[in-house]
Amino acid sequence: MTTRGSKGRGTDPCAALLAVRAQTDRLCAGLTAEDCVVQPMDDASPTKWHLAHTSWFIETFVAPRLRRGYQPIDPRYPFLFNSYYEALGPRHERPRRGMLTRPTLDEVRDYRRRIDALLAEAGDDLDRDTGRALVLALHHEQQHQELILTDLKYLLAQNPLRPAYREARPPPAASEVAPLEWVEQQGGLRSIGAAQGYGLHDFTFDNECPPHQAFVAPHALASRLVTCGEYLAFMEDGGYATPSLWLSDGWALVQAQHWQTPLYWRREGGELHVHTLDGERSLRPDEPVCHLSYYEAEAYARWAGARLPTEEEWESAAGGHPIDGNLLEADALHPRAAVEGSGARPLQLFGDVWEWTQSAYLPYPGFRPFAGEYGEYNGKFMINQMVLRGGSCLTPRSHLRATYRNFFPPSARWQMTGVRLARDLP
Amino acid sequence: MTTRGSKGRGTDPCAALLAVRAQTDRLCAGLTAEDCVVQPMDDASPTKWHLAHTSWFIETFVAPRLRRGYQPIDPRYPFLFNSYYEALGPRHERPRRGMLTRPTLDEVRDYRRRIDALLAEAGDDLDRDTGRALVLALHHEQQHQELILTDLKYLLAQNPLRPAYREARPPPAASEVAPLEWVEQQGGLRSIGAAQGYGLHDFTFDNECPPHQAFVAPHALASRLVTCGEYLAFMEDGGYATPSLWLSDGWALVQAQHWQTPLYWRREGGELHVHTLDGERSLRPDEPVCHLSYYEAEAYARWAGARLPTEEEWESAAGGHPIDGNLLEADALHPRAAVEGSGARPLQLFGDVWEWTQSAYLPYPGFRPFAGEYGEYNGKFMINQMVLRGGSCLTPRSHLRATYRNFFPPSARWQMTGVRLARDLP
Amino acid sequence: MTTRGSKGRGTDPCAALLAVRAQTDRLCAGLTAEDCVVQPMDDASPTKWHLAHTSWFIETFVAPRLRRGYQPIDPRYPFLFNSYYEALGPRHERPRRGMLTRPTLDEVRDYRRRIDALLAEAGDDLDRDTGRALVLALHHEQQHQELILTDLKYLLAQNPLRPAYREARPPPAASEVAPLEWVEQQGGLRSIGAAQGYGLHDFTFDNECPPHQAFVAPHALASRLVTCGEYLAFMEDGGYATPSLWLSDGWALVQAQHWQTPLYWRREGGELHVHTLDGERSLRPDEPVCHLSYYEAEAYARWAGARLPTEEEWESAAGGHPIDGNLLEADALHPRAAVEGSGARPLQLFGDVWEWTQSAYLPYPGFRPFAGEYGEYNGKFMINQMVLRGGSCLTPRSHLRATYRNFFPPSARWQMTGVRLARDLP
Amino acid sequence: MTTRGSKGRGTDPCAALLAVRAQTDRLCAGLTAEDCVVQPMDDASPTKWHLAHTSWFIETFVAPRLRRGYQPIDPRYPFLFNSYYEALGPRHERPRRGMLTRPTLDEVRDYRRRIDALLAEAGDDLDRDTGRALVLALHHEQQHQELILTDLKYLLAQNPLRPAYREARPPPAASEVAPLEWVEQQGGLRSIGAAQGYGLHDFTFDNECPPHQAFVAPHALASRLVTCGEYLAFMEDGGYATPSLWLSDGWALVQAQHWQTPLYWRREGGELHVHTLDGERSLRPDEPVCHLSYYEAEAYARWAGARLPTEEEWESAAGGHPIDGNLLEADALHPRAAVEGSGARPLQLFGDVWEWTQSAYLPYPGFRPFAGEYGEYNGKFMINQMVLRGGSCLTPRSHLRATYRNFFPPSARWQMTGVRLARDLP
Repeated sequence: MTTRGSKGRGTDPCAALLAVRAQTDRLCAGLTAEDCVVQPMDDASPTKWHLAHTSWFIETFVAPRLRRGYQPIDPRYPFLFNSYYEALGPRHERPRRGMLTRPTLDEVRDYRRRIDALLAEAGDDLDRDTGRALVLALHHEQQHQELILTDLKYLLAQNPLRPAYREARPPPAASEVAPLEWVEQQGGLRSIGAAQGYGLHDFTFDNECPPHQAFVAPHALASRLVTCGEYLAFMEDGGYATPSLWLSDGWALVQAQHWQTPLYWRREGGELHVHTLDGERSLRPDEPVCHLSYYEAEAYARWAGARLPTEEEWESAAGGHPIDGNLLEADALHPRAAVEGSGARPLQLFGDVWEWTQSAYLPYPGFRPFAGEYGEYNGKFMINQMVLRGGSCLTPRSHLRATYRNFFPPSARWQMTGVRLARDLP
Repeated sequence: MTTRGSKGRGTDPCAALLAVRAQTDRLCAGLTAEDCVVQPMDDASPTKWHLAHTSWFIETFVAPRLRRGYQPIDPRYPFLFNSYYEALGPRHERPRRGMLTRPTLDEVRDYRRRIDALLAEAGDDLDRDTGRALVLALHHEQQHQELILTDLKYLLAQNPLRPAYREARPPPAASEVAPLEWVEQQGGLRSIGAAQGYGLHDFTFDNECPPHQAFVAPHALASRLVTCGEYLAFMEDGGYATPSLWLSDGWALVQAQHWQTPLYWRREGGELHVHTLDGERSLRPDEPVCHLSYYEAEAYARWAGARLPTEEEWESAAGGHPIDGNLLEADALHPRAAVEGSGARPLQLFGDVWEWTQSAYLPYPGFRPFAGEYGEYNGKFMINQMVLRGGSCLTPRSHLRATYRNFFPPSARWQMTGVRLARDLP
Repeated sequence: MTTRGSKGRGTDPCAALLAVRAQTDRLCAGLTAEDCVVQPMDDASPTKWHLAHTSWFIETFVAPRLRRGYQPIDPRYPFLFNSYYEALGPRHERPRRGMLTRPTLDEVRDYRRRIDALLAEAGDDLDRDTGRALVLALHHEQQHQELILTDLKYLLAQNPLRPAYREARPPPAASEVAPLEWVEQQGGLRSIGAAQGYGLHDFTFDNECPPHQAFVAPHALASRLVTCGEYLAFMEDGGYATPSLWLSDGWALVQAQHWQTPLYWRREGGELHVHTLDGERSLRPDEPVCHLSYYEAEAYARWAGARLPTEEEWESAAGGHPIDGNLLEADALHPRAAVEGSGARPLQLFGDVWEWTQSAYLPYPGFRPFAGEYGEYNGKFMINQMVLRGGSCLTPRSHLRATYRNFFPPSARWQMTGVRLARDLP
Repeated sequence: MTTRGSKGRGTDPCAALLAVRAQTDRLCAGLTAEDCVVQPMDDASPTKWHLAHTSWFIETFVAPRLRRGYQPIDPRYPFLFNSYYEALGPRHERPRRGMLTRPTLDEVRDYRRRIDALLAEAGDDLDRDTGRALVLALHHEQQHQELILTDLKYLLAQNPLRPAYREARPPPAASEVAPLEWVEQQGGLRSIGAAQGYGLHDFTFDNECPPHQAFVAPHALASRLVTCGEYLAFMEDGGYATPSLWLSDGWALVQAQHWQTPLYWRREGGELHVHTLDGERSLRPDEPVCHLSYYEAEAYARWAGARLPTEEEWESAAGGHPIDGNLLEADALHPRAAVEGSGARPLQLFGDVWEWTQSAYLPYPGFRPFAGEYGEYNGKFMINQMVLRGGSCLTPRSHLRATYRNFFPPSARWQMTGVRLARDLP
């Protein structure tokens, strides 16, 4: 029997998963029990729930493969921490996750430790099926790292005291933002999507598969993300008061919710403040605009005489480039101004903010959901959502790919969502 | 000055519009004032409102082009009968259309007659812009013919007395339904969509434009629509109680709304009844299933080991075929069993029921909304809806094209919506 | 066999009921079918429903007593027109009364005529039980006369065209309103309520019974109702913006509903308009203020340094006085300014507006609901409502008594509700 | 300068308030931070909020009287912890109290300690106004002791793990419950209510004042509370399925909420369980039934051929008796079976459960709210609520009086609410 935990990703999926889980724990290390238990809205789960759910995921999909006759640590946890798997039986309702003051945070941390111990004690000779389960659990855990942070950010924003998630870092020095240029892309047939992979180094989600042909018309992509300063110009031009800029459903929301700015912006006196994980501070015009709904992204693009890219356009541009940028590892936890690059390549493709595309989240031609019990992971959500690409400043680098498809309803604002413009070419 | 009304479509857009309007009046001829004033849900407008709104449309977009200095017949009508044109000023709220007991049905009929008179008195020498406005008004009027019937059907279904829209016709003799076969379609690049046309014989809506390339993978389309009998097998196999068959949003609706059958089906004793415009009668298994939400159509397809077609697949199959089938002119007002055809061509492509596709209603590459005041007609609704193709038994024949895109939210059931299956080919 | 219809109330309950029903028909004579079918809110039923329901009431409670083996005119009507009698079986939901476009207004009028014929043909020798049923039906019909008018008034107010119920009468000449004086009332034990009566001339509702002792403290009642002019002073003093004047639930409603005036007042330019059954016209400061919720009445009283009377105080003052005033028979259909009286007696005790009391609608000591099938008439509503006294300009004179208790929830505004002040005396 | 804390109530209001606050702290001593922060419904506030709000109350109403120029400990707390005092400025919305993860429980406990220190350091020579403020704060703190426990009980019941508030005590041995007898009360004029008192030993709330005459008819009161066993007989007789037993609003709630038992009862297999502060355990038929809405209490009484008492009847019976029974000091935290008494006097008048009366919560004749800033304490809630009398097993003994009026909306079930029957006598 071996133990793990200190190893890097390497080739051992148990070790890799343990390393990812240690990162989850680090993200939550400084939180109080109070911060971890409250659910601020139906879509934003308590940190404690995330910590328990990711452990339940391993207990459900990995543990029985590691240990024959495995018995759950607590027989009541599957009911509490199953998120949405209908095939796994009844479960606690999502909007009531915040009612669970027990198990306590300490008990959930103990649950995590026991799951970690199980992983640490696993043998080396894992069969392919167990390996797949571990790799999926790893990517699942990474998805929840981003959600922990976005859900906490939303929670803290509900508090009139405007608390911070951590002690504030000094913000980066104001920089000259790179000018917005148009990077032209030729039209033609493109190969989009990926082959299904289950390994530590070739994993893909089912929704990225299979690879297929798509025709892309000639177009241009903006060389960087839209900034807060540019978005302010839209606002000052009456963007939120001009129905002709909006999709009908978006305009209805603008009026019903009295939207006047992106989420987390607050006007005080003459100044605009923005709520960040480092607390509230002055808005910086050079930073990418974030926390836009699809409706706002799309309205901005129309105002700017442009449009949103399709997911095929985005993927064609991003394919082949290395996955780097302002990602979780940079520890900024907030988008950063684009710094002048080579010019040949669009900046900020990865990291900073997820980029809304004008593509609906639908199955690719030939799509098959993961087999068996994982089948509910992605496929059943392929309606009423739009695709986002590129990851954000809260996404772990090893979680991303050029083919990666994220998805949210067009009204969602609490995720790290921003906008890159595109244009038709004749 | 000439008068019109008795001429066919020909080349005179005023005459053509008058002929279409006369058909609208015929559809409503036997209705009581009561049936015409009530709004049974937010999405279903009163008949009286449809009758007035289509006249307002002409008054707004056509009349000022026909007559310089035109003054509205009643200055209060634009507020009441503007549907959703933000650029045309404030308007009565959609969910409150049923509050308008005045103007009365008689007054609205008089309003229609005065608009008809305006059209009848128009000169022959219409400029291109006026011609366009007339043709758009004609297609707009045809769209409302279908809506009048679907909205009335919904209204009458709210009444426990289960009244009929008209005196019941004898239902067609039971027939041997054509067997379901798979019509294979090759993969490759296809030209999808249409060029913008504004004429009486080449009109297209902006949402069908521009023509563009799309890659279609090899696939097969079902040779006819899914029948009530086939759908019953899905129901009897526990279709409405099996979450793995459903999209997540659909499953939530099934539970919240307690869906157990398509809309308008009712179990009484051991028998299934169906509400039709001819009143309630026994369900006929040979008829195409109708009044399905997208969720039900999609779940059925999954259960059947198939999928819904994309709009490009549908259009590729339908292009080049004549527009015929069980359309409004057949006066059946209900879908009819597929009768054995030649085999080479899918049956029921046009008419009977609108066919849900798995394509989201989004702008085509290079899409531009109609210029100017018509710009809100289609473009602002391109979100949260799915494309339907082919028309229904309530659609006028001259309103349809192979490139025609209809669209409704995936939860909508009160329209004439059904399903044709598709399958991937290797 | 005799026929009736032209006789007065006299001693024949069939004739009396027929006379009341003829008055109902007169109230609805000029209405269109459209005006009679729409339900503008859950609490306000369509005129057609009122016309049918009052006939169903007779068919249910009277007809089987008049004719052995009586069969309903239409077996489907009891389901449609039962209001709230659980003991009489299932029924159409109240908020969906407006969905009933069938039976048509003509059919309902025919239903009424057939019930009238039944009454007209009844013999003279009615037993006591049948007599009771007829008298109850008569008072029930009178209650619906007032509701028909208040519900129609509400419906017409939803229409931006601001239509009138009838051709406008010239408003009365502006008059000098009688000064508000305080009429002192001694304290002591009082006999409150009435003995149960079932006859044409001694009828009482169960909720007025039995007579009982109540202690009333020394107090003073205002000599007339509060006027629009006085209420305007409250508004201009910031009444709707001063939380300390309001009950907590009332203040929550003021904010949620954005109340700034009584219901049906509308500001246009600098002027206040009021919606009446004669159409919209300028507000008259001398008229009693009407369409106040309990919350507004109570807040006004607090602002004025007074309070609302208790129902026992009101009844003590009104007992022994004749039932006269601005009642339905005056055909004003709107409250009228108080004209100087003798001074000894409070003016406007009967008619004009129902007066909110500070008494909750609860059972009197020893209360017993009507026996048997009438038991649900009043008793089950004795919660969450406040008592109103005195009738309104829409109440038939013969319907009222000093002991009569009306009741509405404190949020109700669409009834003819106003306010008389009271004060403690040392 | 003196310090306090160990003294009894005596004559020193600071010492008395400190003793009450120490009891509050004891009630919360064993709770986790998680249990203290979550708000399970709009009406049930988090423990942490109660702990802070009671301190804010002292800081607002007492501290400035104790110390000239007093500055709040944290200038942001008044916004967070003002409950409903409009006159004291804007405040955090009640339904969002559970969003406040900061200040943490530790910070709130520190806040409490600092307020305690302020009280401990106060001089002896308090003026009358300060004395009043202290006594009011004491009674306010006691009210929140009961609310802390009922709100926690509700919170814990939301958790499918069914946790307990404390380690379970062994339940009392099953006992022979005293038989229900009828204690007759003569009719006549009674003096009801109390004179306003502000002292440590004669305090009254404004809503109990002033004393006044009321006429009470001859009646009988049940000698003890209704038991679970008796309520079960109502249930087994179809109580929850018989509309004729219910007020109309109650019947609507029964259906909408699917009520089948009192709150906190749960059927498992053949057995009934009840959630208590000691955890879930088997239902005991000898214990008083608790957690009934007014509607259930009233329906039960009707079924039993009885009625609820009026508050005047209750007060007449309870006046002159000592305040003893199963109160907070007994530490049972649950109602207990009535033990045979002398027979002459109704048992369980104080403690066990609050007894619903059939009296609406309305101002007494001559009622004046507390002067000045306390004016919002009680008066503005005098609508839409019913009076309850007698205290419960969670009420501190020194908080109660025979004239004490508690009040809740008729739908409320999460308080310790039960029922004593009454009957008319001829």
